[in-house]
Amino acid sequence: MDRRPGRVRRARTWRHEGGVLRRRTDVLATEEPLEVRVEAGGTTRTVAITMRTPGDDFELAVGFLHGEGVITGPGDVRRVAYCLDPALGADQRYNVVTVTLSAGVTPDLRPLDRHVVTTSACGVCGKASIDALHVRGCPAPPAGVALDGDTLLALPDRLRVAQAVFERTGGLHAAALFDLDGAVIAAREDVGRHNALDKLIGRALLDGRLPLHHHVVVVSGRASYELVQKSVAAGVPVVCAVSAPSSLAVDVAREFGVTLVGFLRDGGFNVYAHPDRIVSPAT
Amino acid sequence: MDRRPGRVRRARTWRHEGGVLRRRTDVLATEEPLEVRVEAGGTTRTVAITMRTPGDDFELAVGFLHGEGVITGPGDVRRVAYCLDPALGADQRYNVVTVTLSAGVTPDLRPLDRHVVTTSACGVCGKASIDALHVRGCPAPPAGVALDGDTLLALPDRLRVAQAVFERTGGLHAAALFDLDGAVIAAREDVGRHNALDKLIGRALLDGRLPLHHHVVVVSGRASYELVQKSVAAGVPVVCAVSAPSSLAVDVAREFGVTLVGFLRDGGFNVYAHPDRIVSPAT
Repeated sequence: MDRRPGRVRRARTWRHEGGVLRRRTDVLATEEPLEVRVEAGGTTRTVAITMRTPGDDFELAVGFLHGEGVITGPGDVRRVAYCLDPALGADQRYNVVTVTLSAGVTPDLRPLDRHVVTTSACGVCGKASIDALHVRGCPAPPAGVALDGDTLLALPDRLRVAQAVFERTGGLHAAALFDLDGAVIAAREDVGRHNALDKLIGRALLDGRLPLHHHVVVVSGRASYELVQKSVAAGVPVVCAVSAPSSLAVDVAREFGVTLVGFLRDGGFNVYAHPDRIVSPAT
Repeated sequence: MDRRPGRVRRARTWRHEGGVLRRRTDVLATEEPLEVRVEAGGTTRTVAITMRTPGDDFELAVGFLHGEGVITGPGDVRRVAYCLDPALGADQRYNVVTVTLSAGVTPDLRPLDRHVVTTSACGVCGKASIDALHVRGCPAPPAGVALDGDTLLALPDRLRVAQAVFERTGGLHAAALFDLDGAVIAAREDVGRHNALDKLIGRALLDGRLPLHHHVVVVSGRASYELVQKSVAAGVPVVCAVSAPSSLAVDVAREFGVTLVGFLRDGGFNVYAHPDRIVSPAT
Protein backbone atom coordinates (compact mmCIF):
# COMPACT_ATOMS: atom_id res chain seq x y z
CA MET A 1 0.00 0.00 0.00
CA ASP A 2 1.29 3.43 -0.94
CA ARG A 3 1.39 5.83 1.98
CA ARG A 4 2.42 9.38 1.21
CA PRO A 5 3.29 11.11 4.47
CA GLY A 6 1.18 14.15 5.37
CA ARG A 7 2.37 17.44 6.82
CA VAL A 8 0.54 16.81 10.08
CA ARG A 9 -0.70 13.80 11.98
CA ARG A 10 -3.35 13.41 14.66
CA ALA A 11 -2.31 11.83 17.93
CA ARG A 12 -4.03 10.91 21.21
CA THR A 13 -2.39 12.88 24.00
CA TRP A 14 -3.04 14.12 27.52
CA ARG A 15 -3.35 17.69 28.83
CA HIS A 16 -2.28 18.62 32.36
CA GLU A 17 -3.91 21.75 33.73
CA GLY A 18 -4.97 22.74 37.22
CA GLY A 19 -3.53 19.53 38.61
CA VAL A 20 -5.69 17.36 36.35
CA LEU A 21 -4.53 15.13 33.47
CA ARG A 22 -7.16 14.67 30.74
CA ARG A 23 -7.11 12.78 27.45
CA ARG A 24 -7.43 14.71 24.23
CA THR A 25 -6.49 14.66 20.55
CA ASP A 26 -3.64 16.77 19.21
CA VAL A 27 -2.13 17.62 15.83
CA LEU A 28 1.59 17.00 15.36
CA ALA A 29 3.94 18.38 12.70
CA THR A 30 5.25 15.40 10.71
CA GLU A 31 9.00 14.77 10.82
CA GLU A 32 10.43 12.19 8.38
CA PRO A 33 13.86 11.80 6.78
CA LEU A 34 14.37 12.90 3.18
CA GLU A 35 17.27 11.53 1.17
CA VAL A 36 18.49 13.79 -1.64
CA ARG A 37 20.30 12.15 -4.56
CA VAL A 38 22.05 13.78 -7.48
CA GLU A 39 22.27 12.05 -10.85
CA ALA A 40 24.99 13.54 -13.07
CA GLY A 41 27.00 12.08 -15.90
CA GLY A 42 25.38 8.66 -15.56
CA THR A 43 26.02 8.12 -11.85
CA THR A 44 23.72 8.72 -8.89
CA ARG A 45 24.97 9.76 -5.44
CA THR A 46 23.29 10.42 -2.12
CA VAL A 47 24.34 13.92 -1.08
CA ALA A 48 22.17 14.58 1.98
CA ILE A 49 19.71 13.08 4.40
CA THR A 50 17.69 15.62 6.35
CA MET A 51 14.81 15.36 8.80
CA ARG A 52 12.02 17.38 7.25
CA THR A 53 8.26 17.90 7.14
CA PRO A 54 6.88 16.24 3.99
CA GLY A 55 5.57 18.56 1.28
CA ASP A 56 7.44 20.65 -1.30
CA ASP A 57 10.11 17.95 -1.35
CA PHE A 58 11.27 18.78 -4.89
CA GLU A 59 11.69 22.44 -3.93
CA LEU A 60 13.59 21.36 -0.81
CA ALA A 61 16.00 19.21 -2.81
CA VAL A 62 16.58 21.89 -5.45
CA GLY A 63 16.90 24.70 -2.89
CA PHE A 64 19.39 22.67 -0.86
CA LEU A 65 21.52 22.01 -3.94
CA HIS A 66 21.43 25.71 -4.83
CA GLY A 67 22.52 26.73 -1.34
CA GLU A 68 25.45 24.31 -1.60
CA GLY A 69 26.53 25.71 -4.98
CA VAL A 70 25.74 22.50 -6.90
CA ILE A 71 23.21 24.21 -9.19
CA THR A 72 22.84 27.86 -10.09
CA GLY A 73 19.61 28.04 -12.08
CA PRO A 74 16.70 26.07 -13.56
CA GLY A 75 18.77 25.27 -16.65
CA ASP A 76 21.01 23.02 -14.53
CA VAL A 77 18.08 20.74 -13.62
CA ARG A 78 16.73 18.21 -16.10
CA ARG A 79 14.37 16.31 -13.84
CA VAL A 80 13.28 16.00 -10.21
CA ALA A 81 11.46 12.85 -9.11
CA TYR A 82 10.68 10.60 -6.15
CA CYS A 83 12.55 7.30 -6.16
CA LEU A 84 9.42 5.13 -6.50
CA ASP A 85 11.27 1.82 -6.63
CA PRO A 86 8.51 -0.81 -6.13
CA ALA A 87 10.97 -2.76 -3.96
CA LEU A 88 10.79 0.01 -1.35
CA GLY A 89 8.48 -0.40 1.60
CA ALA A 90 5.41 1.82 1.79
CA ASP A 91 7.08 3.84 4.55
CA GLN A 92 10.10 4.63 2.41
CA ARG A 93 8.43 5.87 -0.76
CA TYR A 94 8.29 9.62 -1.08
CA ASN A 95 11.30 9.93 1.23
CA VAL A 96 13.91 9.82 -1.55
CA VAL A 97 14.18 12.58 -4.18
CA THR A 98 16.54 12.32 -7.15
CA VAL A 99 17.64 15.52 -8.93
CA THR A 100 18.94 14.74 -12.41
CA LEU A 101 21.28 17.44 -13.68
CA SER A 102 21.32 18.64 -17.27
CA ALA A 103 23.89 17.23 -19.68
CA GLY A 104 27.25 18.89 -19.15
CA VAL A 105 26.55 19.93 -15.54
CA THR A 106 29.11 17.99 -13.50
CA PRO A 107 29.62 19.76 -10.18
CA ASP A 108 32.15 18.84 -7.54
CA LEU A 109 30.03 17.07 -4.92
CA ARG A 110 32.85 16.40 -2.47
CA PRO A 111 32.23 19.46 -0.27
CA LEU A 112 28.75 18.02 0.44
CA ASP A 113 30.31 15.10 2.27
CA ARG A 114 30.09 17.09 5.45
CA HIS A 115 27.47 19.67 4.46
CA VAL A 116 29.79 22.42 5.56
CA VAL A 117 32.55 24.44 4.08
CA THR A 118 36.07 23.76 5.21
CA THR A 119 39.17 25.12 3.57
CA SER A 120 41.93 23.60 5.64
CA ALA A 121 43.16 20.11 6.38
CA CYS A 122 43.37 20.77 10.11
CA GLY A 123 40.91 23.32 11.32
CA VAL A 124 37.75 25.20 10.65
CA CYS A 125 36.61 28.65 11.61
CA GLY A 126 34.01 31.23 10.80
CA LYS A 127 36.38 33.18 8.58
CA ALA A 128 37.13 30.04 6.52
CA SER A 129 33.38 29.54 6.03
CA ILE A 130 33.08 33.11 4.72
CA ASP A 131 36.13 32.71 2.48
CA ALA A 132 34.58 29.62 0.92
CA LEU A 133 31.52 31.69 -0.08
CA HIS A 134 33.85 34.17 -1.79
CA VAL A 135 35.53 31.31 -3.65
CA ARG A 136 32.11 30.24 -4.90
CA GLY A 137 31.69 33.74 -6.30
CA CYS A 138 28.63 34.89 -4.37
CA PRO A 139 28.24 38.58 -5.34
CA ALA A 140 26.74 41.25 -3.09
CA PRO A 141 23.07 42.09 -3.77
CA PRO A 142 22.33 45.52 -5.29
CA ALA A 143 22.83 48.56 -3.04
CA GLY A 144 20.08 50.72 -4.56
CA VAL A 145 17.21 48.79 -2.94
CA ALA A 146 15.17 50.83 -0.45
CA LEU A 147 12.58 49.61 1.99
CA ASP A 148 10.34 51.51 4.37
CA GLY A 149 10.87 50.60 8.03
CA ASP A 150 7.11 50.49 8.60
CA THR A 151 6.74 48.01 5.75
CA LEU A 152 9.09 45.64 7.58
CA LEU A 153 7.02 45.87 10.76
CA ALA A 154 3.99 44.43 8.96
CA LEU A 155 5.80 41.33 7.64
CA PRO A 156 5.64 38.97 10.66
CA ASP A 157 1.84 39.17 10.78
CA ARG A 158 1.67 38.45 7.04
CA LEU A 159 4.02 35.51 7.53
CA ARG A 160 1.70 34.09 10.17
CA VAL A 161 -1.36 34.51 7.95
CA ALA A 162 0.46 32.75 5.11
CA GLN A 163 1.42 29.82 7.32
CA ALA A 164 -0.89 26.91 6.78
CA VAL A 165 0.20 24.63 9.59
CA PHE A 166 1.96 26.63 12.30
CA GLU A 167 -1.11 27.77 14.17
CA ARG A 168 -2.33 24.18 14.40
CA THR A 169 0.81 22.49 15.71
CA GLY A 170 3.19 25.16 16.99
CA GLY A 171 5.86 22.80 15.72
CA LEU A 172 7.02 24.35 12.47
CA HIS A 173 9.49 26.98 11.43
CA ALA A 174 8.49 29.23 8.55
CA ALA A 175 10.25 31.23 5.87
CA ALA A 176 8.52 33.67 3.53
CA LEU A 177 9.49 35.69 0.49
CA PHE A 178 8.15 39.24 0.11
CA ASP A 179 8.52 41.90 -2.55
CA LEU A 180 9.77 45.39 -1.62
CA ASP A 181 6.19 46.58 -1.03
CA GLY A 182 5.73 43.90 1.60
CA ALA A 183 3.45 41.60 -0.44
CA VAL A 184 3.84 37.84 0.20
CA ILE A 185 5.17 35.92 -2.79
CA ALA A 186 5.53 32.53 -1.11
CA ALA A 187 5.77 30.95 2.34
CA ARG A 188 7.05 27.53 3.36
CA GLU A 189 7.13 25.58 6.63
CA ASP A 190 9.22 22.79 8.08
CA VAL A 191 10.37 21.26 11.37
CA GLY A 192 13.82 22.48 10.26
CA ARG A 193 14.33 26.20 9.73
CA HIS A 194 16.94 25.66 7.00
CA ASN A 195 14.55 23.30 5.19
CA ALA A 196 11.81 25.96 5.13
CA LEU A 197 14.25 28.38 3.48
CA ASP A 198 15.49 25.71 1.03
CA LYS A 199 11.87 25.06 -0.02
CA LEU A 200 11.32 28.79 -0.55
CA ILE A 201 14.48 29.31 -2.59
CA GLY A 202 14.00 26.05 -4.50
CA ARG A 203 10.53 27.22 -5.59
CA ALA A 204 11.96 30.59 -6.66
CA LEU A 205 14.70 28.84 -8.65
CA LEU A 206 12.22 26.56 -10.45
CA ASP A 207 10.09 29.64 -11.22
CA GLY A 208 13.11 31.40 -12.75
CA ARG A 209 13.10 34.15 -10.10
CA LEU A 210 16.78 33.99 -9.06
CA PRO A 211 18.66 36.14 -8.18
CA LEU A 212 16.16 37.57 -5.67
CA HIS A 213 17.57 41.09 -5.92
CA HIS A 214 14.31 42.89 -5.12
CA HIS A 215 12.99 40.67 -2.38
CA VAL A 216 12.93 40.27 1.39
CA VAL A 217 13.21 36.96 3.25
CA VAL A 218 11.62 36.61 6.70
CA VAL A 219 12.24 33.59 8.96
CA SER A 220 10.14 32.79 12.01
CA GLY A 221 12.92 32.12 14.50
CA ARG A 222 16.59 32.93 14.85
CA ALA A 223 19.05 33.74 12.08
CA SER A 224 22.04 31.38 11.89
CA TYR A 225 25.04 31.37 9.57
CA GLU A 226 23.32 28.80 7.40
CA LEU A 227 20.22 30.93 6.77
CA VAL A 228 22.18 34.02 5.77
CA GLN A 229 24.55 31.95 3.62
CA LYS A 230 21.62 30.45 1.68
CA SER A 231 20.14 33.93 1.24
CA VAL A 232 23.47 35.29 -0.02
CA ALA A 233 23.65 32.49 -2.61
CA ALA A 234 20.14 33.48 -3.78
CA GLY A 235 21.02 37.20 -4.03
CA VAL A 236 18.57 38.37 -1.32
CA PRO A 237 19.36 41.97 -0.19
CA VAL A 238 17.28 42.00 3.04
CA VAL A 239 17.00 39.09 5.52
CA CYS A 240 14.79 39.40 8.61
CA ALA A 241 14.42 37.12 11.64
CA VAL A 242 11.72 37.32 14.27
CA SER A 243 14.35 36.44 16.89
CA ALA A 244 18.12 36.90 17.41
CA PRO A 245 20.92 36.46 14.84
CA SER A 246 24.16 34.65 15.67
CA SER A 247 27.59 36.27 15.46
CA LEU A 248 28.48 34.41 12.25
CA ALA A 249 25.15 35.34 10.65
CA VAL A 250 26.05 38.99 11.27
CA ASP A 251 29.59 38.49 9.90
CA VAL A 252 28.33 36.94 6.66
CA ALA A 253 25.70 39.66 6.19
CA ARG A 254 28.29 42.42 6.70
CA GLU A 255 30.80 40.76 4.38
CA PHE A 256 28.32 40.15 1.56
CA GLY A 257 26.37 43.40 1.71
CA VAL A 258 23.14 41.95 3.09
CA THR A 259 20.84 44.00 5.33
CA LEU A 260 20.24 41.79 8.37
CA VAL A 261 17.27 42.52 10.65
CA GLY A 262 16.58 40.71 13.93
CA PHE A 263 13.93 40.80 16.68
CA LEU A 264 11.37 41.91 14.09
CA ARG A 265 8.37 41.96 16.44
CA ASP A 266 6.33 44.09 18.84
CA GLY A 267 6.52 47.20 16.67
CA GLY A 268 10.31 47.43 16.35
CA PHE A 269 13.40 45.71 15.04
CA ASN A 270 17.20 45.68 15.24
CA VAL A 271 19.50 46.06 12.25
CA TYR A 272 22.81 44.18 12.41
CA ALA A 273 24.29 44.94 9.01
CA HIS A 274 23.85 47.42 6.17
CA PRO A 275 21.03 49.62 7.52
CA ASP A 276 21.34 51.85 4.44
CA ARG A 277 18.53 50.01 2.63
CA ILE A 278 16.01 50.90 5.35
CA VAL A 279 14.29 54.23 4.93
CA SER A 280 13.33 55.84 8.20
CA PRO A 281 13.13 59.51 9.28
CA ALA A 282 16.37 59.44 11.30
CA THR A 283 18.51 57.37 8.92
CA MET B 1 48.11 35.56 18.65
CA ASP B 2 45.89 33.03 20.39
CA ARG B 3 42.23 33.94 20.26
CA ARG B 4 39.87 31.66 22.12
CA PRO B 5 36.33 32.39 20.96
CA GLY B 6 33.92 33.61 23.64
CA ARG B 7 30.28 32.62 24.10
CA VAL B 8 29.09 36.10 23.24
CA ARG B 9 30.40 39.06 21.28
CA ARG B 10 29.54 42.73 21.38
CA ALA B 11 28.47 44.38 18.12
CA ARG B 12 27.45 47.86 17.00
CA THR B 13 23.87 47.71 15.73
CA TRP B 14 20.86 49.92 15.09
CA ARG B 15 17.42 49.88 16.74
CA HIS B 16 14.29 50.88 14.82
CA GLU B 17 11.41 52.00 17.02
CA GLY B 18 8.67 54.56 16.52
CA GLY B 19 9.92 55.26 13.00
CA VAL B 20 13.41 56.17 14.20
CA LEU B 21 16.67 54.27 13.60
CA ARG B 22 19.25 54.75 16.38
CA ARG B 23 22.74 53.33 16.89
CA ARG B 24 23.37 51.09 19.87
CA THR B 25 25.53 48.23 21.11
CA ASP B 26 24.21 44.67 21.24
CA VAL B 27 25.40 41.29 22.50
CA LEU B 28 25.41 38.39 20.02
CA ALA B 29 25.58 34.66 20.71
CA THR B 30 28.78 33.36 19.12
CA GLU B 31 28.44 30.78 16.33
CA GLU B 32 31.61 29.02 15.14
CA PRO B 33 32.21 25.62 13.55
CA LEU B 34 33.55 22.77 15.69
CA GLU B 35 35.25 19.79 14.08
CA VAL B 36 35.06 16.54 16.07
CA ARG B 37 37.76 13.93 15.43
CA VAL B 38 38.02 10.41 16.76
CA GLU B 39 41.39 8.76 17.30
CA ALA B 40 41.13 4.98 17.59
CA GLY B 41 43.60 2.22 16.91
CA GLY B 42 46.26 4.65 15.73
CA THR B 43 44.20 6.50 13.12
CA THR B 44 42.36 9.80 13.42
CA ARG B 45 39.16 10.60 11.53
CA THR B 46 36.92 13.65 11.29
CA VAL B 47 33.43 12.44 12.19
CA ALA B 48 31.46 15.69 12.39
CA ILE B 49 31.57 19.41 11.84
CA THR B 50 28.85 21.35 13.61
CA MET B 51 28.09 25.04 14.04
CA ARG B 52 28.10 25.64 17.78
CA THR B 53 28.54 28.24 20.51
CA PRO B 54 32.05 27.90 21.98
CA GLY B 55 32.26 26.59 25.53
CA ASP B 56 31.94 23.04 26.91
CA ASP B 57 33.46 21.80 23.66
CA PHE B 58 34.82 18.59 25.20
CA GLU B 59 31.39 17.78 26.61
CA LEU B 60 29.85 18.52 23.21
CA ALA B 61 32.24 16.15 21.43
CA VAL B 62 31.77 13.37 23.98
CA GLY B 63 27.99 13.81 24.15
CA PHE B 64 27.73 13.74 20.35
CA LEU B 65 29.72 10.51 20.19
CA HIS B 66 27.52 8.97 22.88
CA GLY B 67 24.35 9.92 21.04
CA GLU B 68 25.72 8.27 17.90
CA GLY B 69 26.58 5.07 19.76
CA VAL B 70 30.36 5.43 19.32
CA ILE B 71 31.04 5.47 23.08
CA THR B 72 28.93 4.16 25.94
CA GLY B 73 30.72 5.36 29.07
CA PRO B 74 33.71 7.26 30.47
CA GLY B 75 35.84 4.11 30.26
CA ASP B 76 35.73 4.34 26.46
CA VAL B 77 37.46 7.74 26.48
CA ARG B 78 41.20 8.01 27.08
CA ARG B 79 41.69 11.69 26.32
CA VAL B 80 39.86 14.75 24.98
CA ALA B 81 41.90 17.70 23.70
CA TYR B 82 41.89 20.68 21.37
CA CYS B 83 44.00 20.28 18.24
CA LEU B 84 46.47 23.04 19.08
CA ASP B 85 48.67 22.57 16.03
CA PRO B 86 50.88 25.71 15.93
CA ALA B 87 50.49 25.71 12.15
CA LEU B 88 46.82 26.58 12.59
CA GLY B 89 45.71 30.18 12.30
CA ALA B 90 44.56 31.96 15.47
CA ASP B 91 40.95 31.74 14.25
CA GLN B 92 41.12 27.97 13.90
CA ARG B 93 42.52 26.99 17.27
CA TYR B 94 39.93 25.77 19.74
CA ASN B 95 37.64 24.78 16.86
CA VAL B 96 38.93 21.21 16.56
CA VAL B 97 38.45 18.63 19.34
CA THR B 98 40.02 15.18 19.22
CA VAL B 99 38.52 12.37 21.30
CA THR B 100 41.04 9.56 21.79
CA LEU B 101 39.33 6.26 22.54
CA SER B 102 40.67 3.76 25.04
CA ALA B 103 42.73 0.82 23.82
CA GLY B 104 40.47 -1.87 22.43
CA VAL B 105 37.56 0.47 21.65
CA THR B 106 37.22 0.31 17.86
CA PRO B 107 33.70 1.38 16.92
CA ASP B 108 32.20 1.32 13.45
CA LEU B 109 32.33 4.98 12.42
CA ARG B 110 30.70 4.49 9.02
CA PRO B 111 27.15 5.40 10.12
CA LEU B 112 28.51 8.84 11.08
CA ASP B 113 29.28 9.59 7.46
CA ARG B 114 25.83 11.11 7.15
CA HIS B 115 25.03 11.72 10.82
CA VAL B 116 21.81 9.82 10.42
CA VAL B 117 20.69 6.28 10.66
CA THR B 118 19.75 4.50 7.48
CA THR B 119 19.18 0.81 7.18
CA SER B 120 18.41 0.41 3.50
CA ALA B 121 20.30 0.89 0.28
CA CYS B 122 17.44 2.78 -1.33
CA GLY B 123 15.28 4.59 1.09
CA VAL B 124 14.91 6.03 4.53
CA CYS B 125 11.94 6.46 6.79
CA GLY B 126 11.05 7.19 10.38
CA LYS B 127 10.52 3.52 11.15
CA ALA B 128 14.01 2.65 9.85
CA SER B 129 15.44 5.33 12.17
CA ILE B 130 13.64 3.74 15.12
CA ASP B 131 14.74 0.23 14.08
CA ALA B 132 18.36 1.40 14.05
CA LEU B 133 18.04 2.48 17.69
CA HIS B 134 16.78 -1.01 18.54
CA VAL B 135 19.77 -2.52 16.73
CA ARG B 136 22.05 -0.40 18.92
CA GLY B 137 20.36 -1.95 21.94
CA CYS B 138 18.90 1.17 23.58
CA PRO B 139 16.83 -0.21 26.49
CA ALA B 140 13.70 1.46 27.88
CA PRO B 141 14.24 3.57 31.02
CA PRO B 142 12.76 2.22 34.29
CA ALA B 143 8.97 2.28 34.65
CA GLY B 144 8.86 2.84 38.40
CA VAL B 145 9.87 6.51 38.26
CA ALA B 146 7.18 8.92 39.50
CA LEU B 147 7.09 12.67 39.16
CA ASP B 148 4.62 15.20 40.49
CA GLY B 149 2.90 17.23 37.76
CA ASP B 150 3.38 20.42 39.78
CA THR B 151 7.11 19.74 40.00
CA LEU B 152 7.27 19.76 36.20
CA LEU B 153 5.52 23.13 36.02
CA ALA B 154 8.35 24.76 37.98
CA LEU B 155 11.14 23.53 35.68
CA PRO B 156 11.06 26.11 32.84
CA ASP B 157 11.61 28.98 35.29
CA ARG B 158 14.53 27.11 36.86
CA LEU B 159 15.95 26.49 33.41
CA ARG B 160 15.84 30.23 32.70
CA VAL B 161 17.54 31.08 35.98
CA ALA B 162 20.28 28.54 35.24
CA GLN B 163 20.88 30.01 31.79
CA ALA B 164 23.89 32.27 31.78
CA VAL B 165 23.63 33.80 28.33
CA PHE B 166 20.07 33.50 27.04
CA GLU B 167 18.67 36.57 28.73
CA ARG B 168 21.43 38.68 27.24
CA THR B 169 21.25 37.59 23.61
CA GLY B 170 17.95 35.78 23.04
CA GLY B 171 19.98 33.70 20.62
CA LEU B 172 20.62 30.44 22.43
CA HIS B 173 18.79 27.20 22.95
CA ALA B 174 19.11 25.58 26.35
CA ALA B 175 18.94 22.09 27.80
CA ALA B 176 18.92 21.28 31.50
CA LEU B 177 19.11 18.17 33.63
CA PHE B 178 16.96 17.91 36.77
CA ASP B 179 16.56 15.28 39.45
CA LEU B 180 13.10 13.87 40.25
CA ASP B 181 12.55 16.54 42.91
CA GLY B 182 13.02 19.26 40.29
CA ALA B 183 16.49 20.43 41.40
CA VAL B 184 18.82 21.61 38.60
CA ILE B 185 21.88 19.41 38.13
CA ALA B 186 23.30 21.12 35.05
CA ALA B 187 22.27 23.46 32.22
CA ARG B 188 23.94 24.09 28.88
CA GLU B 189 23.35 26.53 26.03
CA ASP B 190 24.10 26.66 22.33
CA VAL B 191 22.94 28.19 19.05
CA GLY B 192 22.02 24.59 18.15
CA ARG B 193 19.47 22.79 20.29
CA HIS B 194 21.05 19.36 19.69
CA ASN B 195 24.44 20.78 20.73
CA ALA B 196 23.03 22.02 24.05
CA LEU B 197 21.76 18.50 24.79
CA ASP B 198 25.05 16.91 23.66
CA LYS B 199 26.92 19.18 26.08
CA LEU B 200 24.57 18.20 28.90
CA ILE B 201 24.82 14.46 28.25
CA GLY B 202 28.57 14.66 27.59
CA ARG B 203 29.08 16.26 31.02
CA ALA B 204 26.93 13.56 32.65
CA LEU B 205 28.94 10.86 30.89
CA LEU B 206 32.27 12.31 32.00
CA ASP B 207 30.89 12.56 35.57
CA GLY B 208 29.93 8.87 35.48
CA ARG B 209 26.20 9.64 35.78
CA LEU B 210 24.92 7.54 32.85
CA PRO B 211 22.37 6.01 32.51
CA LEU B 212 20.23 8.96 33.66
CA HIS B 213 17.45 6.72 34.97
CA HIS B 214 16.26 9.11 37.69
CA HIS B 215 16.47 12.39 35.82
CA VAL B 216 14.41 14.77 33.72
CA VAL B 217 15.69 16.63 30.64
CA VAL B 218 14.09 19.97 29.70
CA VAL B 219 14.82 21.73 26.38
CA SER B 220 13.94 25.35 25.69
CA GLY B 221 12.32 24.94 22.26
CA ARG B 222 10.73 22.14 20.28
CA ALA B 223 11.38 18.41 20.61
CA SER B 224 12.64 16.75 17.43
CA TYR B 225 13.50 13.12 16.71
CA GLU B 226 17.15 13.89 17.37
CA LEU B 227 16.57 15.21 20.90
CA VAL B 228 14.48 12.24 21.98
CA GLN B 229 16.91 9.80 20.34
CA LYS B 230 19.86 11.29 22.29
CA SER B 231 17.81 11.13 25.51
CA VAL B 232 16.90 7.48 24.85
CA ALA B 233 20.59 6.64 24.39
CA ALA B 234 21.30 8.28 27.77
CA GLY B 235 18.49 6.38 29.54
CA VAL B 236 16.40 9.49 30.40
CA PRO B 237 12.84 8.51 31.47
CA VAL B 238 11.19 11.98 31.17
CA VAL B 239 11.89 14.49 28.37
CA CYS B 240 10.16 17.90 28.39
CA ALA B 241 10.04 20.63 25.74
CA VAL B 242 8.79 24.17 26.24
CA SER B 243 7.28 24.00 22.74
CA ALA B 244 5.85 21.34 20.39
CA PRO B 245 7.22 17.85 19.65
CA SER B 246 7.38 16.43 16.12
CA SER B 247 5.60 13.27 15.02
CA LEU B 248 8.83 11.25 14.99
CA ALA B 249 9.83 12.52 18.44
CA VAL B 250 6.51 11.14 19.72
CA ASP B 251 7.03 7.83 17.88
CA VAL B 252 10.48 7.31 19.40
CA ALA B 253 9.27 8.21 22.89
CA ARG B 254 6.35 5.75 22.65
CA GLU B 255 8.56 2.98 21.26
CA PHE B 256 11.28 3.34 23.89
CA GLY B 257 9.14 3.95 26.96
CA VAL B 258 10.03 7.62 27.43
CA THR B 259 7.54 10.08 28.96
CA LEU B 260 7.41 12.96 26.49
CA VAL B 261 6.04 16.33 27.64
CA GLY B 262 5.48 19.32 25.35
CA PHE B 263 4.22 22.91 25.69
CA LEU B 264 5.52 22.98 29.26
CA ARG B 265 4.63 26.62 29.98
CA ASP B 266 1.94 28.94 31.31
CA GLY B 267 0.92 26.61 34.14
CA GLY B 268 0.17 23.51 32.07
CA PHE B 269 1.67 20.90 29.75
CA ASN B 270 0.79 18.18 27.25
CA VAL B 271 1.92 14.58 27.52
CA TYR B 272 2.55 12.75 24.25
CA ALA B 273 3.82 9.40 25.47
CA HIS B 274 3.82 7.30 28.67
CA PRO B 275 1.90 9.59 31.06
CA ASP B 276 2.08 6.87 33.75
CA ARG B 277 5.18 8.46 35.34
CA ILE B 278 3.32 11.70 36.05
CA VAL B 279 1.44 11.75 39.33
CA SER B 280 -1.64 13.93 39.23
CA PRO B 281 -5.07 13.62 40.97
CA ALA B 282 -6.89 12.47 37.82
CA THR B 283 -4.28 10.05 36.46
